[in-house]
Amino acid sequence: MKKVGILGSTGSIGVNTLNVLENLYDIFEVKYLTANVNVDLLINQSLKYNPEIICIADDRLYKKLKNNLNTKVEILCGREALLYLAGSKSVDLCFNALVGGSGMEPTIKALESGVDVALSNKESMVMAGDIINKISKSTGAKVFPVDSEHSAIWQCLMGEDIKNVNRLILTGSGGPFRQKDLSDFKLITVEQALNHPTWKMGKKISIDSATMMNKGFELIEAFWLFDINYEKIDIVLHPQSIIHSMVEFIDGSIKSQMGNPDMKIPIQFALTYPKRLNSDLEKFDFTSLSDLTFEAPSMEKYPSIKLAYSALKKAGTSCAAINLSNDIAVELFLMNKISFNEIYELNNKVFELHKWLKNPSISDIVELEKWINDFYKTLIK
Amino acid sequence: MKKVGILGSTGSIGVNTLNVLENLYDIFEVKYLTANVNVDLLINQSLKYNPEIICIADDRLYKKLKNNLNTKVEILCGREALLYLAGSKSVDLCFNALVGGSGMEPTIKALESGVDVALSNKESMVMAGDIINKISKSTGAKVFPVDSEHSAIWQCLMGEDIKNVNRLILTGSGGPFRQKDLSDFKLITVEQALNHPTWKMGKKISIDSATMMNKGFELIEAFWLFDINYEKIDIVLHPQSIIHSMVEFIDGSIKSQMGNPDMKIPIQFALTYPKRLNSDLEKFDFTSLSDLTFEAPSMEKYPSIKLAYSALKKAGTSCAAINLSNDIAVELFLMNKISFNEIYELNNKVFELHKWLKNPSISDIVELEKWINDFYKTLIK
Repeated sequence: MKKVGILGSTGSIGVNTLNVLENLYDIFEVKYLTANVNVDLLINQSLKYNPEIICIADDRLYKKLKNNLNTKVEILCGREALLYLAGSKSVDLCFNALVGGSGMEPTIKALESGVDVALSNKESMVMAGDIINKISKSTGAKVFPVDSEHSAIWQCLMGEDIKNVNRLILTGSGGPFRQKDLSDFKLITVEQALNHPTWKMGKKISIDSATMMNKGFELIEAFWLFDINYEKIDIVLHPQSIIHSMVEFIDGSIKSQMGNPDMKIPIQFALTYPKRLNSDLEKFDFTSLSDLTFEAPSMEKYPSIKLAYSALKKAGTSCAAINLSNDIAVELFLMNKISFNEIYELNNKVFELHKWLKNPSISDIVELEKWINDFYKTLIK
Repeated sequence: MKKVGILGSTGSIGVNTLNVLENLYDIFEVKYLTANVNVDLLINQSLKYNPEIICIADDRLYKKLKNNLNTKVEILCGREALLYLAGSKSVDLCFNALVGGSGMEPTIKALESGVDVALSNKESMVMAGDIINKISKSTGAKVFPVDSEHSAIWQCLMGEDIKNVNRLILTGSGGPFRQKDLSDFKLITVEQALNHPTWKMGKKISIDSATMMNKGFELIEAFWLFDINYEKIDIVLHPQSIIHSMVEFIDGSIKSQMGNPDMKIPIQFALTYPKRLNSDLEKFDFTSLSDLTFEAPSMEKYPSIKLAYSALKKAGTSCAAINLSNDIAVELFLMNKISFNEIYELNNKVFELHKWLKNPSISDIVELEKWINDFYKTLIK
């Protein structure tokens, strides 16, 4: 049995991961589940999947967990407990499905313990790709991408040499506003921004897809995951989300990975790698497929993409800064406190104003986070 | 230096192969070139590429070769000389770009000598896939596909296990008559049939693409090359010829290989495998791409596809029979002696009437060829 723990089991990716594991119950054993605040779902998941340990990050919810579950499951709470679980050597794979910058430390804890990480939390790589790669190199623990784009590239690179890559081509649907007039962008509502045309996802990533900051983060993630010059990473809009990304080789050959926009495919691959196992997914029907189209992304509509390239170019703390800023900016947008366009504007401001460091340590990034929190507190006042 | 010989250097694939080699002159050495009748081009190629040996299959043209070339190059002629060259151990790779059933024996000669074969001549596998695989297994010499579809599948299978394949999906443009009314098929002219919408190819394969007999042969070729149940091979029409074929794995993930419809890509890959080398091909521009579409092939318009599935199912001499019949039927169509629809009808007749054998030897196939030649002679009278 392969032992797996899931960080963030009640989020969209966490729920999908448990769905996938249900089909693979004879191969996998769920050791731990963690949630941030969704205590009711965590109780249900605990009853259904019988993990040894569960953890709720918000310790005010500990009692409710305790009162609703029998003594068979060990119940932990708080951030420290979450980090302890992430670093636990009791699993073969830590599935990090946490959302936002707070997912970074758990990734580091797991890798430091020599535990492979299936990484849905792209913020880990965006904020600390360099540090994570160094830890991975020293302990031998690997990072397996879960993002559909990076999973696609990873699969296309199987049996290939990264030195033979001419270009990585990240595809993106363009989100709900690809055809919206730029002049109307300032009036975009939360509801509109959450309404992604092809992928059903959590709130945070849906907003990031609407601004395409998500694609910018994916660019940064690809840079660290695949160790390739950022000038060799292109972004192409592909509204149907059937081709999940592509790799162009030096001989002109292009490989792509494709299929229905269903996160269960990359989730399962990250779980079962280097094997492929049967899934209960429907056979893909090409003949019922609508036309596949491609276009260049507009940098006026999606300035976040340009910001991500700039941050990669500048390196140092730049990527962490826009990521941490974006976490808060998106939250403020979801609370109707700032407009859609202000998400980018504030990220750009933080990029320009923050105290830039060339080789930040994890504690430098924690310091940076404090500064950005203060920046937003002042702003809101 | 990797030594390569080209069988059929004056045909469409042969010419493209020499073009590719021109760009790789510091890695490859051309040992021999052969042509069927195109003596003028063979002279030019000999002067340009300096092979050690050239061979013209039609021995009446020997004198012309001799008179136009200096004594540095060894000049051979006739079928026996061609087979001798094919079996020569002086090369690391025999590139078989011959057209039609006569390409089968040279493939066998090369493999018997332990020489890897880059196989553009799909008829080899269609007629004698079983025998070829056995020889390959016993001598260790490999067959590298050159057909764009099989090259695509081959590339998608790199780093993968064929056991994890759910389905191979061969794409085909549908040729020039995909949108033509079925009732007009009997009036199709040679000129119309030669006018392929996406690929620039030789005459024989252009006609085979119009009937989709070519896709049927590719189905058979894929069966032997990749050792997979024919029920797991699907054919999908994709008129733009950008996605060259796909592999669906048991976990629902699909990989495809794509790019401009340019044979230089699969040719180069077959030459350089397992390496990838730089090519001077233009970077693929997704944003200038027209929509990619997919549809199921009509079995009324393309009965040759059904015939190929039937032949595979029946096995034995069936595939060789339709292949040998098709060689002559296409020739007769090109000479305006039979109609477009009669190509299929005659192939089907040969499939039904020929003396079927379960485990044919090469000499059984030679016997079969004689019978089919007689069948057509009688028919033409």
